[in-house]
Amino acid sequence: MAKKRILTGDRSTGKLHLGHYVGSIANRLRLQDEYQCFFIIADLHMLTTKQRREDIEAAPQNIRDQVLDQLAAGIDPNKVTYYVQSAVKEVYQLNLIFEMLVTVPRLTRLPSIKDMARAALIEEEQMPFGLLGYPVLQAADILLPRANLVPVGKDNEAHVEITREIARRFNHQYGEVFPVPDVMVPEVGTLVGIDGQGKMSKSLNNAILLSDDAKTVEQKVRGMYTDPNRVRADIPGKVEGNPVFIYHDAFNPNVEEVNDLKERYRQGKVGDVEVKRKLAAAINAFLEPMRERRAQYLAQPGFIDDVILSGNRCMREVAAETVRMVEEAMGLTYLRD
Amino acid sequence: MAKKRILTGDRSTGKLHLGHYVGSIANRLRLQDEYQCFFIIADLHMLTTKQRREDIEAAPQNIRDQVLDQLAAGIDPNKVTYYVQSAVKEVYQLNLIFEMLVTVPRLTRLPSIKDMARAALIEEEQMPFGLLGYPVLQAADILLPRANLVPVGKDNEAHVEITREIARRFNHQYGEVFPVPDVMVPEVGTLVGIDGQGKMSKSLNNAILLSDDAKTVEQKVRGMYTDPNRVRADIPGKVEGNPVFIYHDAFNPNVEEVNDLKERYRQGKVGDVEVKRKLAAAINAFLEPMRERRAQYLAQPGFIDDVILSGNRCMREVAAETVRMVEEAMGLTYLRD
Repeated sequence: MAKKRILTGDRSTGKLHLGHYVGSIANRLRLQDEYQCFFIIADLHMLTTKQRREDIEAAPQNIRDQVLDQLAAGIDPNKVTYYVQSAVKEVYQLNLIFEMLVTVPRLTRLPSIKDMARAALIEEEQMPFGLLGYPVLQAADILLPRANLVPVGKDNEAHVEITREIARRFNHQYGEVFPVPDVMVPEVGTLVGIDGQGKMSKSLNNAILLSDDAKTVEQKVRGMYTDPNRVRADIPGKVEGNPVFIYHDAFNPNVEEVNDLKERYRQGKVGDVEVKRKLAAAINAFLEPMRERRAQYLAQPGFIDDVILSGNRCMREVAAETVRMVEEAMGLTYLRD
Repeated sequence: MAKKRILTGDRSTGKLHLGHYVGSIANRLRLQDEYQCFFIIADLHMLTTKQRREDIEAAPQNIRDQVLDQLAAGIDPNKVTYYVQSAVKEVYQLNLIFEMLVTVPRLTRLPSIKDMARAALIEEEQMPFGLLGYPVLQAADILLPRANLVPVGKDNEAHVEITREIARRFNHQYGEVFPVPDVMVPEVGTLVGIDGQGKMSKSLNNAILLSDDAKTVEQKVRGMYTDPNRVRADIPGKVEGNPVFIYHDAFNPNVEEVNDLKERYRQGKVGDVEVKRKLAAAINAFLEPMRERRAQYLAQPGFIDDVILSGNRCMREVAAETVRMVEEAMGLTYLRD
């Protein structure tokens, strides 16, 4: 039996950090054997909030960087299909057809769209029509490879629900073409940034990149936010919610060492310097195999582009098949060559 | 210098009637020599209000009928390009890109969209997202051949204004690609139906078709609504707003005859029978050359399909060129084969 299909992906955001690893890459590593995985790099989604040519021009290098980071993290380019959204034009067609199958009030009521607008500093009066249609374009992304499963973050769960409604509506109206995809919200928290102030994010400048070298990791860890009340090493500290211990739990496989550090921290018997030195060492040990794989891939010029180009080609075949099925189901096949 | 381009067209509504002739075909006949004309058969627009498979299945025969009627009316298939909207897929791409360049409130405030919903018995809660986006799809239609001039009915004038805004916005954002097209609202009224109750329309069953034979025309004219107060031929009648005289003015080239009939009608000195007999003769004389051309075209099996298929091909070339220009201007050309 054919493997079930997964569609997941990212905007063209560039280099990835530990938060991306925890939030999605780790999950993709688990899924890549069991499923046929399509990983979209959703460059058209960016246009819903950013339309400047400078933003578009940044995309190719961002895309190369984020694919390289994922391959370095252990995603196998022979198992998964990476593709660029704008390079597979069938998505435009599904998008328009699906726009007929969802109502304006259904989209207007989604809090997530308003959140996106707010985050992009777009006032309600200036809301682009395409931003309101963002969940429809996502439905086109998901249903283009006829995906069965969609791993997404909590913030996108409601959008997959719209995809499910569109799939059901289409099948009901024209006959069974699409699976009604299941949503999968991975059991992972988001990772706090090194400033302890919020989610790790490049724009907040509080991220440890998967591509940071060992020295940079050491520096960033040295500057990490810890328990602010602990002004001296002999003051008992708080472990819970403390970024250095959150990271120890996430990236240090030596549980004994972590437990020992936690106990001594609570008792005021260990300095921040030691906790951080051991954390930096753990993170660097975690990143080291990625550095090796990255170096191997970089030694093959054009390799990343080839992965993307052949992914585009593969996805185009799948997409052409889907569009053929859609047009036949709808009866949109007349007066063609 | 290359001829300026026109984009105009119709939904896939099937056989045309005298109202279509007066409202648009007459104008197209005047334009076909002076301009490079693209005549779209907008089958995707239908999906904004009608999505059933039965409606889609009716399209091919409707399209053949309405193209045949126009060629019979004197449109020269060697001069103009007829094409089917859904057969030129680049429109889907322009549509999505343009959706980023117009705001939701701009579309929500258009009375025409609400009118369309009302006419299709769609409640506000059920407004399809694609219906709200109808003017964006129209902009994609118009700008796909980079049209300079758009002849439309009064009801679509506001939509062409949206096209103009999108063209300006795109050019400003990414560089000059599109002409800002001028709108042309032809100086013609709509034609009242034979029931005198409203605009001529097939769905109101008050139309004289361009393809009606002579006998049918005679029958329909005999049953036409006239001055309801004139129960006998010797009662003075009202000429103004009287459908039979509106038609005489429109289709009877014998001005002397028409003036004579009007005068006698006002004085109660002519019977309806004579007025109508002369009208039927005039309309049949008007339709006769169309019948001859129609017979000639029908004598060539597959001719109409060939006109459409070669129109599709021609439009695809123009569309591919436009999309290339759009992608280059936007910088959406990376990571392609």
